[in-house]
Amino acid sequence: MLKHVEICYSPAEYPLYQEGFELVVVIDVLRATSAICTALENGVEKIIPVATVEEARAWQEKGYLAAAERNGEIVEGFDLGNSPVAYIERAEELRGRTVVLTTTNGTKAIDIARDKNTVVIGSLNNLETLSQWLIDQNQNVLILGSGWKDKFNLEDTICAGAIADALLESGKFIADEDSTVAAKFIYRSARDNMFAFLKASSHRRRLIRLNLNADVKYCLTPNNLTTIPILRNGSLVKLNHEMVAIAQE
Amino acid sequence: MLKHVEICYSPAEYPLYQEGFELVVVIDVLRATSAICTALENGVEKIIPVATVEEARAWQEKGYLAAAERNGEIVEGFDLGNSPVAYIERAEELRGRTVVLTTTNGTKAIDIARDKNTVVIGSLNNLETLSQWLIDQNQNVLILGSGWKDKFNLEDTICAGAIADALLESGKFIADEDSTVAAKFIYRSARDNMFAFLKASSHRRRLIRLNLNADVKYCLTPNNLTTIPILRNGSLVKLNHEMVAIAQE
Repeated sequence: MLKHVEICYSPAEYPLYQEGFELVVVIDVLRATSAICTALENGVEKIIPVATVEEARAWQEKGYLAAAERNGEIVEGFDLGNSPVAYIERAEELRGRTVVLTTTNGTKAIDIARDKNTVVIGSLNNLETLSQWLIDQNQNVLILGSGWKDKFNLEDTICAGAIADALLESGKFIADEDSTVAAKFIYRSARDNMFAFLKASSHRRRLIRLNLNADVKYCLTPNNLTTIPILRNGSLVKLNHEMVAIAQE
Repeated sequence: MLKHVEICYSPAEYPLYQEGFELVVVIDVLRATSAICTALENGVEKIIPVATVEEARAWQEKGYLAAAERNGEIVEGFDLGNSPVAYIERAEELRGRTVVLTTTNGTKAIDIARDKNTVVIGSLNNLETLSQWLIDQNQNVLILGSGWKDKFNLEDTICAGAIADALLESGKFIADEDSTVAAKFIYRSARDNMFAFLKASSHRRRLIRLNLNADVKYCLTPNNLTTIPILRNGSLVKLNHEMVAIAQE
């Protein structure tokens, strides 16, 4: 039987879309979910996503390494935010460690989906690996964009559209929602020159003002990672394909 | 100074977008706002939009002619809904009359915008006349799609994108929100063959199941009307361009 793949553009709309889905993909291309994929691929052991800066501080006081970003900048009192480039540059120091992370939009989206059986993390960086894995699951898939402060966001929609496009092309999925249809169209218009297309994106303009061009370029590079982060007992860890296969037998 | 034109996809998101706008364009292409433009152009004197069926019934009991649609069908106890074709077919009987109207999405969107100074009604039918009038107003313009039960909707987004495109092309407006940028892209992909493009629309499929193909075709015909409905003291009336010009002097 065909499964559904649908797209919800922002956390505010999640209650309208979530029914009937037990597998949610959370996306925050600029930059939280790109950073999460990058950190786990580059040796971070575990990421504990928390919704508020206060929670991140509480973990910090207990001795945890905590990262916090608000409005594109590292929050005072933290020395790590959601820059994927920073997670690569500091890979050696971070190897094997647990990082507590709060960001403006991404960790909020992860937080509202945490009651679902399966929550995985998507980005353009792990697009192909993730899409293939989703096709293999034989479940309804809801893709949740993190948006910008609950508003529709162009780069998350393009990434969600890319995943939906791959799932629909497999012939194993259908899409009913107009949000899914539109995101697929936007992705197909954008895919050949994502960087030029996103010139118009409000968030990209915001980050360029903050001098984060290297991060933007990195986040818009498809398929340079093969890690699928998955939520297990409140922590994001690298999905172990073998373990999943065994668990499903 | 440049003015803003922005697009809000559905009533649920209106609180996130409405600040700074005193001119709101409400759109419900299939079919409420297309029907409102058509009814006023074809001789209906006044339309009183109400949010609930109960309100429509209360007006009916007071002797008013009331129209009510829910989920694409005329509500029991009413003999008029939101079919623009019906308003044309019954033009003679309806000439000079006041119609109380409630619909699934459109009248709800009008209702939440009613505290603004100016609320006008848009559709593909009055696209050109409305866009030119908006360009002349020299005000920030918020375009509010009615969506489908608070969800994103393809045909309203295309119509909103068409209006935004015209305003941006005039050189007098800018757009900051990603929702506006995306709607413009979707409109530009769709404009040459709107009917084929909307094959994928969930709402169009819904109406075709209800055998409303003539209405769908009519609603997707751009520029066959020149009426701009405007909200005055809770009623939608035909905008009298001369009166507006005098009032602004």
